[in-house]
Amino acid sequence: MKMVDINCDLGESYGIYRMPWDEAVLPLITSANIACGFHAGDPATMRSTVEKAMEHQVAIGAHPGLPDMQGFGRRSMDITPQEAYDMVVYQIGALDAFIRSYGGCMHHVKPHGALYNMAAENMLLAEAIAQAVYDVRPELYLYGLAGSALIESADRIGLRSVSEVFADRTYGSDGKLTPRSHAGAVIGQPEQALAQVLRMVNEGVVVSTEGLAVPLKAETICIHGDGEHALSFAREIRALLEAEGVMLSAAGHA
Amino acid sequence: MKMVDINCDLGESYGIYRMPWDEAVLPLITSANIACGFHAGDPATMRSTVEKAMEHQVAIGAHPGLPDMQGFGRRSMDITPQEAYDMVVYQIGALDAFIRSYGGCMHHVKPHGALYNMAAENMLLAEAIAQAVYDVRPELYLYGLAGSALIESADRIGLRSVSEVFADRTYGSDGKLTPRSHAGAVIGQPEQALAQVLRMVNEGVVVSTEGLAVPLKAETICIHGDGEHALSFAREIRALLEAEGVMLSAAGHA
Amino acid sequence: MKMVDINCDLGESYGIYRMPWDEAVLPLITSANIACGFHAGDPATMRSTVEKAMEHQVAIGAHPGLPDMQGFGRRSMDITPQEAYDMVVYQIGALDAFIRSYGGCMHHVKPHGALYNMAAENMLLAEAIAQAVYDVRPELYLYGLAGSALIESADRIGLRSVSEVFADRTYGSDGKLTPRSHAGAVIGQPEQALAQVLRMVNEGVVVSTEGLAVPLKAETICIHGDGEHALSFAREIRALLEAEGVMLSAAGHA
Amino acid sequence: MKMVDINCDLGESYGIYRMPWDEAVLPLITSANIACGFHAGDPATMRSTVEKAMEHQVAIGAHPGLPDMQGFGRRSMDITPQEAYDMVVYQIGALDAFIRSYGGCMHHVKPHGALYNMAAENMLLAEAIAQAVYDVRPELYLYGLAGSALIESADRIGLRSVSEVFADRTYGSDGKLTPRSHAGAVIGQPEQALAQVLRMVNEGVVVSTEGLAVPLKAETICIHGDGEHALSFAREIRALLEAEGVMLSAAGHA
Repeated sequence: MKMVDINCDLGESYGIYRMPWDEAVLPLITSANIACGFHAGDPATMRSTVEKAMEHQVAIGAHPGLPDMQGFGRRSMDITPQEAYDMVVYQIGALDAFIRSYGGCMHHVKPHGALYNMAAENMLLAEAIAQAVYDVRPELYLYGLAGSALIESADRIGLRSVSEVFADRTYGSDGKLTPRSHAGAVIGQPEQALAQVLRMVNEGVVVSTEGLAVPLKAETICIHGDGEHALSFAREIRALLEAEGVMLSAAGHA
Repeated sequence: MKMVDINCDLGESYGIYRMPWDEAVLPLITSANIACGFHAGDPATMRSTVEKAMEHQVAIGAHPGLPDMQGFGRRSMDITPQEAYDMVVYQIGALDAFIRSYGGCMHHVKPHGALYNMAAENMLLAEAIAQAVYDVRPELYLYGLAGSALIESADRIGLRSVSEVFADRTYGSDGKLTPRSHAGAVIGQPEQALAQVLRMVNEGVVVSTEGLAVPLKAETICIHGDGEHALSFAREIRALLEAEGVMLSAAGHA
Repeated sequence: MKMVDINCDLGESYGIYRMPWDEAVLPLITSANIACGFHAGDPATMRSTVEKAMEHQVAIGAHPGLPDMQGFGRRSMDITPQEAYDMVVYQIGALDAFIRSYGGCMHHVKPHGALYNMAAENMLLAEAIAQAVYDVRPELYLYGLAGSALIESADRIGLRSVSEVFADRTYGSDGKLTPRSHAGAVIGQPEQALAQVLRMVNEGVVVSTEGLAVPLKAETICIHGDGEHALSFAREIRALLEAEGVMLSAAGHA
Repeated sequence: MKMVDINCDLGESYGIYRMPWDEAVLPLITSANIACGFHAGDPATMRSTVEKAMEHQVAIGAHPGLPDMQGFGRRSMDITPQEAYDMVVYQIGALDAFIRSYGGCMHHVKPHGALYNMAAENMLLAEAIAQAVYDVRPELYLYGLAGSALIESADRIGLRSVSEVFADRTYGSDGKLTPRSHAGAVIGQPEQALAQVLRMVNEGVVVSTEGLAVPLKAETICIHGDGEHALSFAREIRALLEAEGVMLSAAGHA
């Protein structure tokens, strides 16, 4: 039986600034990546998000980002591997304490935004991040872009990796995402996105923008929870996968 | 045999801003309170300070503070008990991850600056902080001002408390520190401070500003490491206690 | 002819976190207090808010707050008068540069949240804030709570003060706001709030919770722009005042 | 008569973290670039640094940096030209208010660290920064690396530019600084550095690492004030220039 995880970034409120969709998205996912106070989130938000995620029995992961609240962690910064290591250790620990306070266990780590993208391409940063996760809790899963330097680093070090794919993004024949700056990077039609998801999960293949069938490991699907539109699309993905008999579960949570 | 702990706040560098005395103070102390990135410290500083503290086999504690880097956590803020709880959980976790990455164990928590002072007087804040420590790791020691609300809260909840005394501060007949705004709050003469330390440790008594012998639990002595003067005074305290046959050790580390 | 100003806090978005009501509230007000990046706001938000305020020919003021983004500047902090002075100078300057870049002029300063409340009661802080405004631009108006230490400080120093009243808050017989922690602090019925506004503006009087008619200088009315409810109430206030022949204008803008 | 400016970055303390050399360096320079609270500095530091700079009759400039206190503004960030524009406007304004409060006038702007380096190469960022300066105060001077995109942008827009050279860095035959990552980037021998300064100021020429005489506009020399070594080198530069009859003055301050 095929199995796949559905993950979403949560806990990205900050102070009085509320992201209102967390409650709505929790029933749709099998794992949650919770912001740790660098690119978004704060101690109160982390606590309440952990509480809600545990109520929904969703696998909880840390979602560490660059120290750039104003840019939401989306602006690349020229950090050293050591700096990446340190900021990941710090943020995992901060979230872990909230999970412990509820008697839970952290399940995974997924870097956020620019840190995620940098770790997909830059092997030194990827290795530093994987090492940070390993040094804090070697039993954690590390989520990264399918085929990325981060996944490769995790595998090499003995961390369990989880390859992430995107429903609404197109891929090149090298298995990489079409950059957002290119035309055709985003799939606008829901049916096409759903078809892509199904093929990635069932066959481990994506059809590239050049029309080639490219192998791709699809262990977790990233969904967005920022608006009614995103939520209804997430519901469609979920319904489709269930209808096709795919088991929805975070790795190790079955 | 009498026993006492000597603690010092460490890891209070930030970015390029260096506090240069950590290396010099480590041989003098038995426990270190490491800043956690709110009032001082940053991930790189936390990592390197943990590393050094482990090399010196010093008991490592978290030193959580108010989120006020510019004021070094010394300005009182009107926070709720829930906010105190959340910021303490967060900071303990962040430091804990660095300690874990070196294969060590956290030993204690000591709040910093205004948070320490507020927790000495305000029972609701004190309870929230004690509960935060307990919920993350019930085996941790909680350091607080001798006779304070924080010590009382720790004891009530089943946390192990460690009562802190000051060598160079005078006490009132109610066992409280003379406020810094009062004349005679600080003991200027080293001999007098050393005599006070000895009596606190050996007899559990301090002579108040009114001349009364007041009982006081002296389980840890706070020393400062910010300058040659502070270091030489710390060396004197240490030498005196050793000469008197007092065992220097963090609680449970003997 | 009676005249009154209607002011609202604007530009309180931060990074990706958007406060969506600024556009809707601008047609309803005669002066805007724009956040300056300490309790809320950021350079991009300040620029775009200044631009919109100028399009609507609204008087623009700086809205300096405590350096506490996470607490939205609502948590009192134990700052010195010098610290208050410095943070107000800084924030006025930062906003002023955006106003200059559009060829405009700053009209006023209104402290935010806890800084506003502290400056209402604490004369030393009030004097420091008034002096800061004066030292940067002596021609600016300073908005403060009617009857507060801030208004008194402004008047004494030769700054032009603007006394602020609240439509939906009750007052004691000493002319002070009923603390929010007390029952009956907030006026729930719109008709009652509207009646209070009218009497404050027309007669310079408010009926206290003890039923006394208390004199009160009502030069500007604070409205809120955070939701449909707040906006429709603001529209009612505005319509009522216009129907009563009250001229709506910021001081000096008539 | 030849003229040159000697500038230094000042006011880079933060909270309790003190940079102790500002007082010592002020008698040596003719213009000061004061940090504005993003990469270093805080409102109290800005005020006291402006006060001291005015006492020494040094030309005062804003020294805006990236919003990265932890990295001291030295880590490149992937910001848009609009973001660069906004952060420069904000920081100029903040410093300007302190200068105004002392009855002074801002003289120039010099970007800091990574922002300076990015603006030397990236024309879009350079244009945005020059435009920001122009829009706030078109009479300001803009300091930038000699031959950089920032100088070109300033000149094109009608801002007065000031070309900066370095005493202790080598140059390539294209007139660019040898990257720090290359061997021979830094001049270790003081005599060689002094000779380079003299030739740059007197002849407008630098001898490149390949031995070519390359034209270079030398209007201001950057000195460092971080340690006894740096200060004594600055004293030597100053003494040499005075001995050679070069007039030391900020542009327009003669």
